[in-house]
Amino acid sequence: MSDKAPWITYRPELKVLDCTIRDGGLINGHRFDDGFVRAVYRACDAAGVDYMEIGYKNSPEAFPREKYGPWRHCKEDDLLRIVGDHKAKGSAMKLAAMADASKSDCETDIIPADQSPLSMIRVAFYAHQVPEAVEMIGHAHAMGYETTANLMAVSNISETEIDTVLEAIAATPASTMVIVDSFGHLYREQIDMLYNRYTKALEGTGKEIGIHAHNNLQLAFANTIEAIILGCNRVDSTIFGFGRGAGNCHTELLLGFLRNPKFNLRPILEVIQDHFLDLRRRIEWGPLVPYNITGQMNAHPRAAIEWRAGETPDDFLGFYDKLVAD
Amino acid sequence: MSDKAPWITYRPELKVLDCTIRDGGLINGHRFDDGFVRAVYRACDAAGVDYMEIGYKNSPEAFPREKYGPWRHCKEDDLLRIVGDHKAKGSAMKLAAMADASKSDCETDIIPADQSPLSMIRVAFYAHQVPEAVEMIGHAHAMGYETTANLMAVSNISETEIDTVLEAIAATPASTMVIVDSFGHLYREQIDMLYNRYTKALEGTGKEIGIHAHNNLQLAFANTIEAIILGCNRVDSTIFGFGRGAGNCHTELLLGFLRNPKFNLRPILEVIQDHFLDLRRRIEWGPLVPYNITGQMNAHPRAAIEWRAGETPDDFLGFYDKLVAD
Repeated sequence: MSDKAPWITYRPELKVLDCTIRDGGLINGHRFDDGFVRAVYRACDAAGVDYMEIGYKNSPEAFPREKYGPWRHCKEDDLLRIVGDHKAKGSAMKLAAMADASKSDCETDIIPADQSPLSMIRVAFYAHQVPEAVEMIGHAHAMGYETTANLMAVSNISETEIDTVLEAIAATPASTMVIVDSFGHLYREQIDMLYNRYTKALEGTGKEIGIHAHNNLQLAFANTIEAIILGCNRVDSTIFGFGRGAGNCHTELLLGFLRNPKFNLRPILEVIQDHFLDLRRRIEWGPLVPYNITGQMNAHPRAAIEWRAGETPDDFLGFYDKLVAD
Repeated sequence: MSDKAPWITYRPELKVLDCTIRDGGLINGHRFDDGFVRAVYRACDAAGVDYMEIGYKNSPEAFPREKYGPWRHCKEDDLLRIVGDHKAKGSAMKLAAMADASKSDCETDIIPADQSPLSMIRVAFYAHQVPEAVEMIGHAHAMGYETTANLMAVSNISETEIDTVLEAIAATPASTMVIVDSFGHLYREQIDMLYNRYTKALEGTGKEIGIHAHNNLQLAFANTIEAIILGCNRVDSTIFGFGRGAGNCHTELLLGFLRNPKFNLRPILEVIQDHFLDLRRRIEWGPLVPYNITGQMNAHPRAAIEWRAGETPDDFLGFYDKLVAD
């Protein structure tokens, strides 16, 4: 990568993870029809995306099957129905699923990697769940998966807590520690500080740093670029920014920015016009004003999601006054 | 401004210019009804915005009155009808208008500043028009206005051309030289390089650096923040991002980010819900996929605007293939 005009070069080790189905499914309880999931799978594969995260490996006890769609659980037969014998196809793309601390049954639901189309398990956790996350990472690793540690809502905890989490994760076999801005609150100087903190704590472990940004302040793509500039080699995005609340860094922006010739923007544009335009007419997401406000206030988007589903969704002033008063 | 957590402090000398009417008017030929312009004026004033750019001081010969609304020309009686004797009101907000090189009659249309509600004339020009821009700045300055130099489409010219423009502008009385990313193509490392180039060339002149960003890649707010971090003290934005093509840096995001207690977000949220939601249903702008594509390609948004007005506006793939083939 050139120092002079890095924007026309690339870093081969940089890998893109598309989490469209996993993150977007938080809006609709992961109730997608098979055709949609298959279209996203094919688009990611054709676009040269490195990892596709197809859902959660969470437990049907926490998320009953009558209420949630198959991509909240990623049962092996559901996976096979969509992706077939993925690993035998010779695709360069790997499949991932996320497991939430306290909401998954890792011990029973994660089968050996050589029997699954999945190659990666990403463990999502809040700071206070780090002991459980360490166990989950260890188990998934022992089952043959690449693993990552995704500490959520990092804008909402202290530096001391972050350091404690990093120390615990450093000792695990996770390949990657992801900076997760769940509230879409951070801007670039904060990304810089976190990246430096993560890098220093994980020095010598060989771990990569990842970035997962939300778009509350229209900064998801910018913060992803910032992390890339700093040296981050694992970056998350979703097609058309599909994701809960304000949504995510857009895959089509990210691939359009990266210069690695292995990436191909066309399949992403195609799946957007064939599937996502219609989806956006039925389901709402994106950096709407109430999400701008929760982002600015470093608050969970929950209140904004409820406001948009309420009786006066466009009363932005009412929402702002409510949050300030709360 | 603290070095440790600058995001909770502020720089008093940082000034915001809202160019909603001026830039947004490029979509509809500046044909706004008086009530809308008055609502924006009142919102900006109440929000503590430092400058409101209310339109162009361009010539009726270049833009006939039967085709363009009053804010393409900013005739003094049109201004008075909306803002009254603005300078006598004791508002901290100053009013600005933009004059385009080759498209305005500065010599005849710009009256002495002490007879006008306007306090600032911003001169917009392409690199090859710099000799005319220098004359226009000199004239407006002689008439008592604060002036700025806005070199447009900076992503589309060479460094040598930029240096030549900066050398010419350094000798003028312009208070500010603005980095204008007309195509919405730049990302933060390029903003850094431009900022450093502008700063070095204008060293010792006392000029401020401004930023005017477009949102093709959802980077308008991020690039504005970046310029602020670097030291830029004059920043442009528009309410709800209203502006031609992909639109601009959102005033509501910017004010929500700045910590100067003189800024007040509420009036901006109010005018958005009372006026801009309805406007957005009638007029299209924002970082839609075709604007993403022209931004990525460093192209004028013209082709995307035409595509969106054509018969297959949602055929993003068709648009992409057309641009790649062109």
